[in-house]
Amino acid sequence: MSMSLAIVDPALIEDLVDANHILFHLGVVDGFGHVSARHPEDPGRFFISRSMAPGLVTQSDIMMIDLDGQPLSDSAPTPYLERFIHSEIYRARPDVVAIVHSHSAAVIPFSVVPGATLMPISHMSGFIGDGAPVFEIRNAAGPNSDMLVRNRELGAALATSLGRHNIVLMRGHGSTVVGFNVRQAVYRAVYAELNARQQSEALRLGTPTYLTPGEAVESARANDGQQDRAWNLWKRAVTQKGLA
Amino acid sequence: MSMSLAIVDPALIEDLVDANHILFHLGVVDGFGHVSARHPEDPGRFFISRSMAPGLVTQSDIMMIDLDGQPLSDSAPTPYLERFIHSEIYRARPDVVAIVHSHSAAVIPFSVVPGATLMPISHMSGFIGDGAPVFEIRNAAGPNSDMLVRNRELGAALATSLGRHNIVLMRGHGSTVVGFNVRQAVYRAVYAELNARQQSEALRLGTPTYLTPGEAVESARANDGQQDRAWNLWKRAVTQKGLA
Amino acid sequence: MSMSLAIVDPALIEDLVDANHILFHLGVVDGFGHVSARHPEDPGRFFISRSMAPGLVTQSDIMMIDLDGQPLSDSAPTPYLERFIHSEIYRARPDVVAIVHSHSAAVIPFSVVPGATLMPISHMSGFIGDGAPVFEIRNAAGPNSDMLVRNRELGAALATSLGRHNIVLMRGHGSTVVGFNVRQAVYRAVYAELNARQQSEALRLGTPTYLTPGEAVESARANDGQQDRAWNLWKRAVTQKGLA
Amino acid sequence: MSMSLAIVDPALIEDLVDANHILFHLGVVDGFGHVSARHPEDPGRFFISRSMAPGLVTQSDIMMIDLDGQPLSDSAPTPYLERFIHSEIYRARPDVVAIVHSHSAAVIPFSVVPGATLMPISHMSGFIGDGAPVFEIRNAAGPNSDMLVRNRELGAALATSLGRHNIVLMRGHGSTVVGFNVRQAVYRAVYAELNARQQSEALRLGTPTYLTPGEAVESARANDGQQDRAWNLWKRAVTQKGLA
Repeated sequence: MSMSLAIVDPALIEDLVDANHILFHLGVVDGFGHVSARHPEDPGRFFISRSMAPGLVTQSDIMMIDLDGQPLSDSAPTPYLERFIHSEIYRARPDVVAIVHSHSAAVIPFSVVPGATLMPISHMSGFIGDGAPVFEIRNAAGPNSDMLVRNRELGAALATSLGRHNIVLMRGHGSTVVGFNVRQAVYRAVYAELNARQQSEALRLGTPTYLTPGEAVESARANDGQQDRAWNLWKRAVTQKGLA
Repeated sequence: MSMSLAIVDPALIEDLVDANHILFHLGVVDGFGHVSARHPEDPGRFFISRSMAPGLVTQSDIMMIDLDGQPLSDSAPTPYLERFIHSEIYRARPDVVAIVHSHSAAVIPFSVVPGATLMPISHMSGFIGDGAPVFEIRNAAGPNSDMLVRNRELGAALATSLGRHNIVLMRGHGSTVVGFNVRQAVYRAVYAELNARQQSEALRLGTPTYLTPGEAVESARANDGQQDRAWNLWKRAVTQKGLA
Repeated sequence: MSMSLAIVDPALIEDLVDANHILFHLGVVDGFGHVSARHPEDPGRFFISRSMAPGLVTQSDIMMIDLDGQPLSDSAPTPYLERFIHSEIYRARPDVVAIVHSHSAAVIPFSVVPGATLMPISHMSGFIGDGAPVFEIRNAAGPNSDMLVRNRELGAALATSLGRHNIVLMRGHGSTVVGFNVRQAVYRAVYAELNARQQSEALRLGTPTYLTPGEAVESARANDGQQDRAWNLWKRAVTQKGLA
Repeated sequence: MSMSLAIVDPALIEDLVDANHILFHLGVVDGFGHVSARHPEDPGRFFISRSMAPGLVTQSDIMMIDLDGQPLSDSAPTPYLERFIHSEIYRARPDVVAIVHSHSAAVIPFSVVPGATLMPISHMSGFIGDGAPVFEIRNAAGPNSDMLVRNRELGAALATSLGRHNIVLMRGHGSTVVGFNVRQAVYRAVYAELNARQQSEALRLGTPTYLTPGEAVESARANDGQQDRAWNLWKRAVTQKGLA
């Protein structure tokens, strides 16, 4: 951890490192995917690992990047190609404090089938609200891109698709979820994946009854108050594994 | 474990703590869900963990609650919001000695699809009987609730849906199973989840032949006599993991 | 291990104990299921664990039972209720030297859906031949049994359903596979489960091309020569887990 | 490791051994399957384990084989029956430096259902290109073979099915992927399996939008530059497991 990070609340950096390990432990990310947290005192900066597998991240791998996607040091290590997912969402959404981007397995099918909308199937995923929007990168990058959100323009287009939602799917790629803190963003990434699996199963049984918009809002609020119950469990798991 | 718990049969408290760990180990509960046991000498009270992840519960986290859902101590820790699931079922069902509430993954699809009834697909789940009823919380809490069984009225409505069954599904939420002891309730929670997975698969192959009501009753009775075979295995697993 | 077992080839008893652990390690059995081996010198007897979870079996739990299902000692521990699966198949099939009975998860759906026949989808499961027969216990035990093969008559009816096949499914219950040694029976139990999972998936994609009878015979023969490749791997896994 | 191997770049042999362990760790291979690497200085030879489970391979198990499938030593251990998969692809494809053959579970259904083509569903599997061809061994070996690529003729027929693709499915058997180095071949084997699982799910939701040929090429190129991110993670996992 560089000197400039050392003056930030150490608990935030610890949560960010734990988030990397927890998302790996739970299978939300594999060698790819990333999680970031906005700087608590400077909304124009955010913390994120250098380009590496989340499961291997330590405090010394955390770097600072500004909202143009530029590392805040001349000697910065290689950043993620897709850091613009983070920088442009932080720019467009002042309320967002943490972001998780992943390729979690069960979400991807919902990103590629027109008309198959990820909907909240249980109270654990009320944050999905009235359904997750899908970002079609072809609309912004043309039909032959490498699918990566590798510049400001594509990041801004993704942020537009996200709109006021808590989650946006990315066609043939994965999803991005936002939160008011690291723990909430992790919670949402975990339960988005679980919701996708369950919704997929339910759709084969018949026509599911999803949460009403009111149920979604109220259950999401109730769960926000219970976040640490899951976090404490996950924290122990990665500590026992020697990841924390 | 408080002094008032110390005078209870220590084997019961040990089973209750083990039940928390086993349900987590087997993936029936994650950071959420809970298990309780009725007081062996006072049917108006039950034991349950304070509000925390089941996988982290120790004996010192077990508290006593009465059938109004009130903790039996002024200095009691924070109880589960949904303790009324337990208190009202214990009130309505004098035969019930233990209860597991979970959000186990494969059961939820059956809770949200009208007409998709959880049925006993093998002799391991004869306890499902003639099919699991579904509790629709909207009928009791209206269309915009937070989905939680957070008061006596909702607990009583759930108990009514349960009726004389061993399991009740809760729409967009999970399930609650009951037993004549902790081990039986755990067994039922585990095999309800497995049954859901298998029934789901079978439904895609064609029209399954379920157990007849007679087969369900007889196989459930036979399995009750074999409960400890599974319990001993699960107990070793959580002991080896350092959870017990 | 009793004195009478000590005179048998120790390698056979070791394989039988390992088989219990391997089947548990690979998820073919859970707290239930059993595996047996015929006595190498007395075809009228077989070795099997006393009634307990396979994952917990040690050499001292192995007992001898005759083809009437009677333990060969007055002080024998409690045998499995369903030992008649083994005794009657050994009686009917002199070529069979080892038997595995399990409730493996993906096989059960094929047991309950009329017309859904377990067929060999890949060269690893050529032993399934022209499709697994299904034993409907109602035909022998009536419509209200406890589903268990708990006596000689039911065991004999199961053996009749098995016929000359290597595997028989049991409606709403599981399967039984046979082999010319313990390792082959274990291999078949493992790959029957995997085949069921893959066939289930393939059926959703369209109409699968199964192995021809000739391909089934030839690939099964080729795999028989490679059995120890898998066994050595599984043996290490259970040894490392501390099960062996 | 024999003397003749000792003079080769030790990093290559280390990667090859790690590849065996990683493919096992990730469930791409079980007791069966194999991985090879072409000799860096002699394109007419390749390195591969002797016939054994990949999860158990050590450096001393690596042997050299020529493009006729002949071990390069009179005292060579038993080679894999299907080494002709490797020798004939190396002969037909001078650009290929590494090969993985596996029976990975989700790929097999795509190999047996006519018309179900494995297509790239996300940017992680752009290497699948315009869809994986399927090798029907019956066309080369007749209707009653043992399904194994056990001689040069069958290896050559497989290589013809592979053509210029990076992956070829083998009906009722598995798949073979190629790469310009060991790490790329492992990456492709891992993500081919994941792609199959996700495509299978997507097909049940409706009609998936696959990568365009341009997106496939570009995303594959982008991922090639990120290969070590996954490799480093996998390497740690097998090291921690004591496999490396």
